[in-house]
Amino acid sequence: MLNEIGKSAKVASRILAAASTVSKNTALKYIAEDIVKYADKILSANKLDIENAVANGMSKAMTDRLTLTKERIGAIAEGVLKICDLPDPIGEVVGAAKRPNGLQIAKRRVPLGVIAVIYESRPNVTVDTAVLCIKSSNACILRGGKEAFNSNVAIADIMRAAVSRAGLPEGTVELIRDTSRDTATELMHLNEYVDVLIPRGGAGLINTVVQNATVPVIQTGVGNCHIFVDKGCDIDMAVKILINAKTSRPSVCNAAETLLVHKDIGDEFYDRASRALAEHNVEVRACPVSISKFSGAVPATETDWETEYNDYILAVKVVDGIDEAIEHIEKYGTGHSECIVTENYTNANYFQDRVDAAAVYVNASTRFTDGFEFGFGAEIGISTQKMHARGPMGLAELTTVKYVITGNGQIR
Amino acid sequence: MLNEIGKSAKVASRILAAASTVSKNTALKYIAEDIVKYADKILSANKLDIENAVANGMSKAMTDRLTLTKERIGAIAEGVLKICDLPDPIGEVVGAAKRPNGLQIAKRRVPLGVIAVIYESRPNVTVDTAVLCIKSSNACILRGGKEAFNSNVAIADIMRAAVSRAGLPEGTVELIRDTSRDTATELMHLNEYVDVLIPRGGAGLINTVVQNATVPVIQTGVGNCHIFVDKGCDIDMAVKILINAKTSRPSVCNAAETLLVHKDIGDEFYDRASRALAEHNVEVRACPVSISKFSGAVPATETDWETEYNDYILAVKVVDGIDEAIEHIEKYGTGHSECIVTENYTNANYFQDRVDAAAVYVNASTRFTDGFEFGFGAEIGISTQKMHARGPMGLAELTTVKYVITGNGQIR
Repeated sequence: MLNEIGKSAKVASRILAAASTVSKNTALKYIAEDIVKYADKILSANKLDIENAVANGMSKAMTDRLTLTKERIGAIAEGVLKICDLPDPIGEVVGAAKRPNGLQIAKRRVPLGVIAVIYESRPNVTVDTAVLCIKSSNACILRGGKEAFNSNVAIADIMRAAVSRAGLPEGTVELIRDTSRDTATELMHLNEYVDVLIPRGGAGLINTVVQNATVPVIQTGVGNCHIFVDKGCDIDMAVKILINAKTSRPSVCNAAETLLVHKDIGDEFYDRASRALAEHNVEVRACPVSISKFSGAVPATETDWETEYNDYILAVKVVDGIDEAIEHIEKYGTGHSECIVTENYTNANYFQDRVDAAAVYVNASTRFTDGFEFGFGAEIGISTQKMHARGPMGLAELTTVKYVITGNGQIR
Repeated sequence: MLNEIGKSAKVASRILAAASTVSKNTALKYIAEDIVKYADKILSANKLDIENAVANGMSKAMTDRLTLTKERIGAIAEGVLKICDLPDPIGEVVGAAKRPNGLQIAKRRVPLGVIAVIYESRPNVTVDTAVLCIKSSNACILRGGKEAFNSNVAIADIMRAAVSRAGLPEGTVELIRDTSRDTATELMHLNEYVDVLIPRGGAGLINTVVQNATVPVIQTGVGNCHIFVDKGCDIDMAVKILINAKTSRPSVCNAAETLLVHKDIGDEFYDRASRALAEHNVEVRACPVSISKFSGAVPATETDWETEYNDYILAVKVVDGIDEAIEHIEKYGTGHSECIVTENYTNANYFQDRVDAAAVYVNASTRFTDGFEFGFGAEIGISTQKMHARGPMGLAELTTVKYVITGNGQIR
């Protein structure tokens, strides 16, 4: 069923690979213009989705994520223009050598080809993903959730027309217009056409994709992040980092979930942390050693160490020292973002050397693990696997390389 | 069943990640010494494997690949010392930035962790793979073929003792000592412990792994490579490149399988190519237009365009021009190595821009796609996928990165 879509995207990807930066940027400008120009079309499609959501009893938070407004569409269009302004990653020579036999070998950045993305409710992902793919000369196959079906169709049609007006093939942006589970499964096995599949969503979606896909996958966004507060640290800094990492946006993957505390930290830290957490209405689930230090804390269970709450809940565990902290992170962490707050120089370096995660912080909030904060200008997700890309993925992470070799008759 | 092996490799990988270059090099030197010192043990184990192979009617070519001698073991040990001499890829800072908020972000090269390799008969792969993994601070889980079982056990035991003598954990090198299909299948699903799985072998093995593995996979080594001979090229060069690419070592993946010829090439090329191919006993399977040009040629079928012969057989097709050549390569190529022989400057660049393969050559043999020829000093295989690594994989391709972030209390 998806063969036609796959073929169309593959054909488009060949054209995109050779497209100039100017024509790709023109396509992005047209997309930005047209989603504003045809905002009414998008909004009436979105209204249908919201009505269905309400009828199906979707939670207020989820319905809010689904909802578009004129202002939100304007913000999406501005985001498109920002990506338009980023440098084109394609064609960059990332290595070159002249070999003793005279062969000239250049390693050149080229697009991946066809990027498939399976995602959940937010319709802005439809625009973001397509635009990041176009800027990096990739065609995309989008498989959005059924909740945003009407919005996604309206947005995709506008984008396809804009891309076509810019002289690029419509197949640059393919939307799967059947949101049954079957199409997701088929997409996971479309090896002939799909170069990389990126699931963007919760742990359930990502796990399903990892377990089932035969196409190459980049896992994103599961973050069970820790803050380890070392003895002798700056207590004021530790509390600020903890509160920021836990409460500035608890629903995102770079938010902290567990606090690890050195056993000799002293009561000042507990008093201030307990007060600040209470002020932010954070529920504390604590180990036996620390439970008395937090007003209203409940006992933590094994499950708490494993859980990415994405909510105003914090697990707390006292550890004997840095090695136990690192062991705990090894055992329960998801390799996303980990932080030590310390003034001990040796411990700072030891933590950064030993902790196996995409981003390892000394004295800064885990909330900085983000393509924009890292200076990439954009982000398609945060890879928590080690292959291909790790941490925030910008335009460069949507590329691969090819070796271009120039000879004058060399044989072996 | 493989849980213990997985856990042991994972524990070792944490220690290796923090191991010094000196201790890794010491392990490699001990391995090189010990496989020579205990060559008799390896040879008597190898003798058992050869006896079994002969009893089971293994072909002479396959039996030869399986056979070790004192000289071959000496050559393997020399190879180990060469890898020992390569620069350590771990710890290299491949990017760094100071952000406006004062955060210092460094992108540091770190090991992948645990690399699993499923391979077929040649026992030298057991040493090669382990040594490349150790040098890049990765633990490895090896699953060799049943034909080389006794040799692999002898070699692995010697390597494990050598690694241990150098102060590194034995789990650095894990060999699966059960060569049933079940262990291969289990290894493909050992997501908790395996960071990357690399199949090294024929198309059948690679396809099985791609279809079944839930762990991340790097596909290697399927090469249906083409030589496109453009009109107006240097005929002498074209024939030399063709003969080298086809006949210097037909069994390897960078050998050419199909010759594409511009329709206006002229008879001089055909005369010389036909004679040279005949001298090298190459069977020609030709399209209707070219069949009369090659003495003894048989008609090519659709299957010929798809086949990686790995043998003294060449498919030949006449094309209208560069676009048809590129289309043919897109349709039948495996994205390994592709070559144009031309004196036309525009066509040379067009071919390198448009052909989507790991290595794209102008006027040089496809046989150069090789880690040693590219100057990497070593090779664990040639990736024909786009994710993570493409083309010859040296030590750098066995690494990933982590972001190491240093702050002084930054919050968002």
